[in-house]
Amino acid sequence: MAKAPVLTPQAADFPRWYQDVIAKAELAESGPVRGTMVIRPYGYSLWERMQAEVDARIKAAGARNAYFPLFIPESYLKREAEHVEGFSPELAVVTHAGGKELEEPVVVRPTSETVIGEFMAKWVQSYRDLPLLLNQWANVVRWELRPRVFLRTSEFLWQEGHTAHATFEDARDYARMILHDVYQDFMVNVLAMPIVVGRKTARERFAGAINTLTCEGMMGDGKALQMGTSHELGQNFARAFDIDYLDATGARQHVWTTSWGASTRMVGGLIMAHGDDNGLRVPPLLAPVQVLVVAVKAETVERAVAVAAELSAAGVRAEAELRTDTPFGRRAVDAELKGYPLRVEIGPRDLAEQSVTLVRRIAGTKTSVPLTGLVRAVTAALAEEQAELYRAARERLDARVVDVATPEEAAEAASGGWARIPWAVLGEAGEQRLAEQSVSVRCLVRADGSVPDSGDEPELVAYVARAY
Amino acid sequence: MAKAPVLTPQAADFPRWYQDVIAKAELAESGPVRGTMVIRPYGYSLWERMQAEVDARIKAAGARNAYFPLFIPESYLKREAEHVEGFSPELAVVTHAGGKELEEPVVVRPTSETVIGEFMAKWVQSYRDLPLLLNQWANVVRWELRPRVFLRTSEFLWQEGHTAHATFEDARDYARMILHDVYQDFMVNVLAMPIVVGRKTARERFAGAINTLTCEGMMGDGKALQMGTSHELGQNFARAFDIDYLDATGARQHVWTTSWGASTRMVGGLIMAHGDDNGLRVPPLLAPVQVLVVAVKAETVERAVAVAAELSAAGVRAEAELRTDTPFGRRAVDAELKGYPLRVEIGPRDLAEQSVTLVRRIAGTKTSVPLTGLVRAVTAALAEEQAELYRAARERLDARVVDVATPEEAAEAASGGWARIPWAVLGEAGEQRLAEQSVSVRCLVRADGSVPDSGDEPELVAYVARAY
Repeated sequence: MAKAPVLTPQAADFPRWYQDVIAKAELAESGPVRGTMVIRPYGYSLWERMQAEVDARIKAAGARNAYFPLFIPESYLKREAEHVEGFSPELAVVTHAGGKELEEPVVVRPTSETVIGEFMAKWVQSYRDLPLLLNQWANVVRWELRPRVFLRTSEFLWQEGHTAHATFEDARDYARMILHDVYQDFMVNVLAMPIVVGRKTARERFAGAINTLTCEGMMGDGKALQMGTSHELGQNFARAFDIDYLDATGARQHVWTTSWGASTRMVGGLIMAHGDDNGLRVPPLLAPVQVLVVAVKAETVERAVAVAAELSAAGVRAEAELRTDTPFGRRAVDAELKGYPLRVEIGPRDLAEQSVTLVRRIAGTKTSVPLTGLVRAVTAALAEEQAELYRAARERLDARVVDVATPEEAAEAASGGWARIPWAVLGEAGEQRLAEQSVSVRCLVRADGSVPDSGDEPELVAYVARAY
Repeated sequence: MAKAPVLTPQAADFPRWYQDVIAKAELAESGPVRGTMVIRPYGYSLWERMQAEVDARIKAAGARNAYFPLFIPESYLKREAEHVEGFSPELAVVTHAGGKELEEPVVVRPTSETVIGEFMAKWVQSYRDLPLLLNQWANVVRWELRPRVFLRTSEFLWQEGHTAHATFEDARDYARMILHDVYQDFMVNVLAMPIVVGRKTARERFAGAINTLTCEGMMGDGKALQMGTSHELGQNFARAFDIDYLDATGARQHVWTTSWGASTRMVGGLIMAHGDDNGLRVPPLLAPVQVLVVAVKAETVERAVAVAAELSAAGVRAEAELRTDTPFGRRAVDAELKGYPLRVEIGPRDLAEQSVTLVRRIAGTKTSVPLTGLVRAVTAALAEEQAELYRAARERLDARVVDVATPEEAAEAASGGWARIPWAVLGEAGEQRLAEQSVSVRCLVRADGSVPDSGDEPELVAYVARAY
């Protein structure tokens, strides 16, 4: 008799599979206030690894971390017209504090352009103060009517970068550098996800931006997920917050600002891009635990601890799993659910033969490896698993993106994948018609795949898809 | 003619000196909403180093990071009577969100015992699930009537640990272990601060705790600062949130919980414990920049970059400072303000002589060091500066703690230092009289200096002081 599957199969109901993985792999739960989430330790360890990798790239890009307040005076948001219009419907408002009604209500930050703009205005005086490159790791609140854990939550965790530059060109180049060197590099080389990068249409642009660049990933069901965005804000916030400087000739100029962010939504993207019917599959370069060393029986506990220590000493993120009083089958299911790239299982026979059993989560193989060559075998297997995960995701992306010639064909293709269509053919009218069918333009790219600037260009191609 | 000092001298006005350092060393500013703060990049880099050191110790203590929501239903707080009474006056309340009035107002977390209690109740079923050891890094909000940057702000950053245990003893031992192995160890060995550890009196206990353990540091003006606390919560939250488990005999039992936290307040403690009239003095083991490598002239820039790279390669946190178009005096003042432990200055003569000038912030010495021996000299100097900073703080603590025999003498001693007085002599009545003079019992210790348990004991000694 076949056992009931641990998870709803992806093919049966992908959104249900997603919820099942999040629950069974102990990643997160819904919080008590609508739309909020509790990130459980294993889910949080994935986020911590994302933070570490993204933070290192942000620092390499020259930005410095800072922290700005959670609470923003309501009046600040109103200073930039498009910005307040975009965020007003999603704001949470504190009206009472310290036992009294506040004179001016404060909003819980939905993003921090306004409050950071206020301080940039104080800190930037001369061209010598530019560029000013800031980033913060923080929680933000956007009230969600249809929340979905990690993907769309009323509170989420993110980094938001905010920079000020002397010229349009410098701001444009920096926003683009963040897109490629921070987000795309991290997503491709650590998350093992092929990413389509391009610019958003005017309709999909960030509220207050003159240009939004985006990283779009394909999920297991062929839908798109916006994984990170980088905005050129022009001089909109500089004007609203009087951020200006004296240039080298002594003339007063407004700065040009950018902002860019990536959030806990990436955890959702990781799950949906790589997961299978047995659970998560975590790319080795991200994995908080790359190798789970499993003591199959009580008599192999000592060996398992020693092997985990040996791997750790070699720089591998290894953890010993010693629950020998729990049925082995259940432990194997747990490990598959959590998606550790490798398992090293040590049973009594392995002990006797001075070997271990190496189980690969992604390739799905089981092989016996002598103890003496374990570090080398593990290191090689991790690299192979990383490459294989990317290859499989790349293959899916290539297979599910089709070139089409009409908006109708684009809508059709978006039922199970993405469409590419000339922007000259689709246009804003076609974009509107697609939107009525919940299909959106994910981004515009040049014919050669490169990212266009904010200005009009002929021969742009639109990627069209349903999206989370 | 003597120049005006960069900072208000400590002896003239210590609180003003504190504000001056925070502004001039570019650590933080007040935010636009009353009591909030903006942590600037240099201030935040101190916090990031504190986070890294404390987080490593928390993980070594077996706790795992997670994340719980910012918003807590108002009803949760009301379930534990003392807790709600303690926090009600400080709550910020969200009444409107998503354009509507909420059915139930939500509070912005002042601390997370309640919401974490709710989830512990779901996750703990059997004795096998215990202990449950969680921690989170988060922002919390407690509305402050008299805010002071880093010390008392309406929003602050902290870590809050929350654990559940099968027995009173296990919870007690864990709370104590966190006190010693996480907080005290970090404060003494990294922050270079001698710390008095003890238990709080009933009056000073955390709202909802049966026992609060504390780390108290002495500031430059002889006042005390509570730097971190660890609470035994007994079964108060277990009862309020039904956190129970089946023990090995199959009987249902309430768990015993603990909570413990340390915050951005530690940055204020660092400033006030070690700063002098020239600015901050950062202990080398904490310092984000241990060595500032200063190119005195344009022709020494290349050498400065090379020396910074050599030090970095040797594992020293070094940064090159190349602002050769800024007057050298101002650059030296900046470096003193920021309190980098060491400066390596490289002028034209140093270049010619294949040497550098090594300036120690704490010892205040300037010596010429040959390039060939620089890494060794720097490493040795960093260790000496760390030891010297601790020695000086220890000397101050020893000099300013006096043993007294009456509450009147204790109040008198608290004008410029701390008093030690037998708790049997002071008692709660004496504590109340001291409180009327803004003097408090910082903690109770045993006669041998060790930390007492929650129960009554004879011969306890009270540390008495004014506090921030």
